Amino acid sequence: MPIKSGDKLPSVDLYENTPTAKVNIAELTAGKKVIIIGVPGAFTPCCSKSHLPSYISDFEKFKSKGIDEIVCVAVNDPYVMAAWGKDQNANGKVRMLADTNGAFAKALDLEKDLSGPLGNVRCQRFSMLVEDGVVKALNVEPDGTGASCSLSNNILSQI
Amino acid sequence: MPIKSGDKLPSVDLYENTPTAKVNIAELTAGKKVIIIGVPGAFTPCCSKSHLPSYISDFEKFKSKGIDEIVCVAVNDPYVMAAWGKDQNANGKVRMLADTNGAFAKALDLEKDLSGPLGNVRCQRFSMLVEDGVVKALNVEPDGTGASCSLSNNILSQI
Repeated sequence: MPIKSGDKLPSVDLYENTPTAKVNIAELTAGKKVIIIGVPGAFTPCCSKSHLPSYISDFEKFKSKGIDEIVCVAVNDPYVMAAWGKDQNANGKVRMLADTNGAFAKALDLEKDLSGPLGNVRCQRFSMLVEDGVVKALNVEPDGTGASCSLSNNILSQI
Repeated sequence: MPIKSGDKLPSVDLYENTPTAKVNIAELTAGKKVIIIGVPGAFTPCCSKSHLPSYISDFEKFKSKGIDEIVCVAVNDPYVMAAWGKDQNANGKVRMLADTNGAFAKALDLEKDLSGPLGNVRCQRFSMLVEDGVVKALNVEPDGTGASCSLSNNILSQI
């Protein structure tokens, strides 16, 4: 069953910039208000033109609502995630974390098989508000890949 | 057995820019002199700082030796490959082709399991001279990932 509001976030290691820099998502969210967005793929048109940019441009709004961090997760390797963050000017606003092996997407039960177009199982597009490790709001795109309910304006209204 | 000099290149579809733009490697090399380089991963430090750049900067030397096209292949999705090519200013010099599902790496028997750091099975680093669909020279890095024999200067001397 997919993760839902009220659930505790699973403890999974993600990677930032390089394959050796582990970031445990349970540790990262402990005692904090964190927005996590999941995306099907770095550099894909929808993720690059609407989804991630909406969070980067609304960074100050999230900050003023008490959000400590915004994290973007995709099943891509850490080098690709870092390059995508650089390309999108995410630095200092959205942390780009690699779910290298898809362990986080699997633990959330939010996998999306995109083997055909992208080569492997990725993550459904979602936005999530996490407070002290517990999911407080979750918006998963109905088709897994569109960008409507998971855009920044919706979760901003849920904080 | 890995592909070797004298072998016919397998007929495998690769993808350019998007998951719908198929490029068959056997068709691409028919009647032409083509350099194919295989790399473990787009945006990885070694591929981005020495291997691919050596081919981009030596583009004119390859042209003057009668090479019709230079192609870079990696087990990454087409969006990531296109973004990497843009980042490296490869446009017009090296075509960035996605071996999305690793079918080409597998057909060449040049796979490299990088599940730990990069999340899946990738491609060993190599350079290859192909004339009318037949392999005329092949340099595979002994450890699969280093950048020595597969750099541009070596295969330039083999044309």
